[in-house]
Amino acid sequence: MGNMASKRTISLDAMGGDAGPSVVIPGAALALERHPNLQFLLFGDETRVKAVLDQHADLARVSRIVHTTTVVEMQDKPSQAVRRGKTSSMWRALDAVKSGEADFAVSAGNTGALMAMAKLVLRTMPGIERPAIAAQWPTVKRPSIVLDLGANVGATARELADFAVLGAAMARAIFHIERPSVALLNIGVEEIKGVEEVKQANVWLKDAELPFDYRGFVEGDQIGQGVVDVVVVEGFAGNIALKTAEGTAKQVGTYIREALTSSPIAKIGALIARGGLLKLKDRMDPRRFNGGVFLGLNGIAVKSHGGTDAIGFASAIQVGYDMAENEILRRIGADLAALHGKLDDLTAATGA
Amino acid sequence: MGNMASKRTISLDAMGGDAGPSVVIPGAALALERHPNLQFLLFGDETRVKAVLDQHADLARVSRIVHTTTVVEMQDKPSQAVRRGKTSSMWRALDAVKSGEADFAVSAGNTGALMAMAKLVLRTMPGIERPAIAAQWPTVKRPSIVLDLGANVGATARELADFAVLGAAMARAIFHIERPSVALLNIGVEEIKGVEEVKQANVWLKDAELPFDYRGFVEGDQIGQGVVDVVVVEGFAGNIALKTAEGTAKQVGTYIREALTSSPIAKIGALIARGGLLKLKDRMDPRRFNGGVFLGLNGIAVKSHGGTDAIGFASAIQVGYDMAENEILRRIGADLAALHGKLDDLTAATGA
Repeated sequence: MGNMASKRTISLDAMGGDAGPSVVIPGAALALERHPNLQFLLFGDETRVKAVLDQHADLARVSRIVHTTTVVEMQDKPSQAVRRGKTSSMWRALDAVKSGEADFAVSAGNTGALMAMAKLVLRTMPGIERPAIAAQWPTVKRPSIVLDLGANVGATARELADFAVLGAAMARAIFHIERPSVALLNIGVEEIKGVEEVKQANVWLKDAELPFDYRGFVEGDQIGQGVVDVVVVEGFAGNIALKTAEGTAKQVGTYIREALTSSPIAKIGALIARGGLLKLKDRMDPRRFNGGVFLGLNGIAVKSHGGTDAIGFASAIQVGYDMAENEILRRIGADLAALHGKLDDLTAATGA
Repeated sequence: MGNMASKRTISLDAMGGDAGPSVVIPGAALALERHPNLQFLLFGDETRVKAVLDQHADLARVSRIVHTTTVVEMQDKPSQAVRRGKTSSMWRALDAVKSGEADFAVSAGNTGALMAMAKLVLRTMPGIERPAIAAQWPTVKRPSIVLDLGANVGATARELADFAVLGAAMARAIFHIERPSVALLNIGVEEIKGVEEVKQANVWLKDAELPFDYRGFVEGDQIGQGVVDVVVVEGFAGNIALKTAEGTAKQVGTYIREALTSSPIAKIGALIARGGLLKLKDRMDPRRFNGGVFLGLNGIAVKSHGGTDAIGFASAIQVGYDMAENEILRRIGADLAALHGKLDDLTAATGA
């Protein structure tokens, strides 16, 4: 792509996250180094944003600051944020996607508020009632996409089938594979186990002949093995799985540090193996996989982790960039229409 | 305790697990080394059991083989197993607990079948409809107890409150702490999030003044940090959390191995740091935490991982031993009665 690629405009909630502009702006600068075709709409307090932007001359040349006066705080309830947030940097960043000024929006702000605003501003796609949050999950192979990571609690069989379509489209865009493999997360590979919704979704996904490779059930321990490209689960268990994996990685990281500092000789060994251990650190670096996407909306909105740094924020921009480049929304629209047509046929045939 | 402790009799499903007697018998021998007051009822094929037992003279002196002709296979459905399983080693091992011949039973066999049989043979305690599976979860501090790990899908608010009582009793028995800390697993620490059942259980547990330290909600990433002694969650999300943690630990283990063999110099460093790395391996050894307990039954039944070895099987025996020594069933009975009385008062007062 490089300089010859068509321009992509990104709207950024410059005030979002624990650090606001001091992470968002350097993150944007990193993304620009990678993709010189980017340009930016920066929503936030003009004085604060400009102070950081002045240190990034290349970025400043392709950016426009839009001054906003309201900030959604991390502790705001979604309903509060929506009520008094229409002038906020978060809302305005989403609005730029709706109006077509921007190809996608990124915010590191309050997840619940961003979700609520994104639904209001971008609206859900036809046939979708509740969007899902999807993100990359590192595995021993290439990453997988897992969704829903907590946009909603619970999911009907139809919503789980929708998630499969949404996740497959994201996998196509991000991993550049035409026919991703997809599975439902369950608590046993035997078809008799699990909840009714998961069982029904399994039957439908097997029968619906969708444009991906449906593989049935996987269990929690298979996610990290990268056995499929897309793992589908309702948001309560999905969020718990994600957080538990993060916690376990952190826990094992603590064990490694303690083991390699447990004696002078262990410390010497660790020093000698430093190159390998740095590779390990890099592989376990959560910043590489930062960026949750709200799927099922008429526009691309990416949620960055609130506590990440510029490198992590640039990863979130990268996710949105891949999605926009691959015209994911058009593809999702077509695939969802096909799914819903087939489900209508299947349910009419079985009376379900 | 040592030799002076009163005798404890354990009934073992000698045929359970991937390897049957060749793991169960050496596992029992290891447990006997630790607790000379143990004696064993070994249910299984006499010829096969005796062949292994002959290699363990000390164990043979305190064991009695009870010949059984039926074996529950790993792929049997629970309903099948129950129908034709009354003569199986699994059923007979549980029956010995019911009759009072044994203090507790351990099986490494088919989880679903063991669960179904345990419910039929031992029956649930008053006020309990569905038991839970609880196990130790390694953390950076001492282990925590997590339940339900998949005995059932879904849980009412009342069942979650029951699980809190059951888990607290297990923590008391295993960690020897009088007032364990307990939390509900949820997808956000704000009280507004999560499912209705979890929110209702939270209100009840805060108000019911139970004999443990109720701490509200925790998220998945806090389990491995050991922030509480007992984590309560319904079985679908609980099983997914457990499997995901196991998968992540395995995944990071793969990363560590690859990092420390990625170059000759990394290999040399790893060799020098070998002592520390062995400590790491030991801390991550799942055998140390083997043994899921079915809680809520009128008897102690422990499920060992089907693929573990003698060391892991001995850990499962240890869990049952601690539970029996601490008269956990009597304590649970009293605590459940207190909880149910208080819940009846609370629901009568609020009309809930």
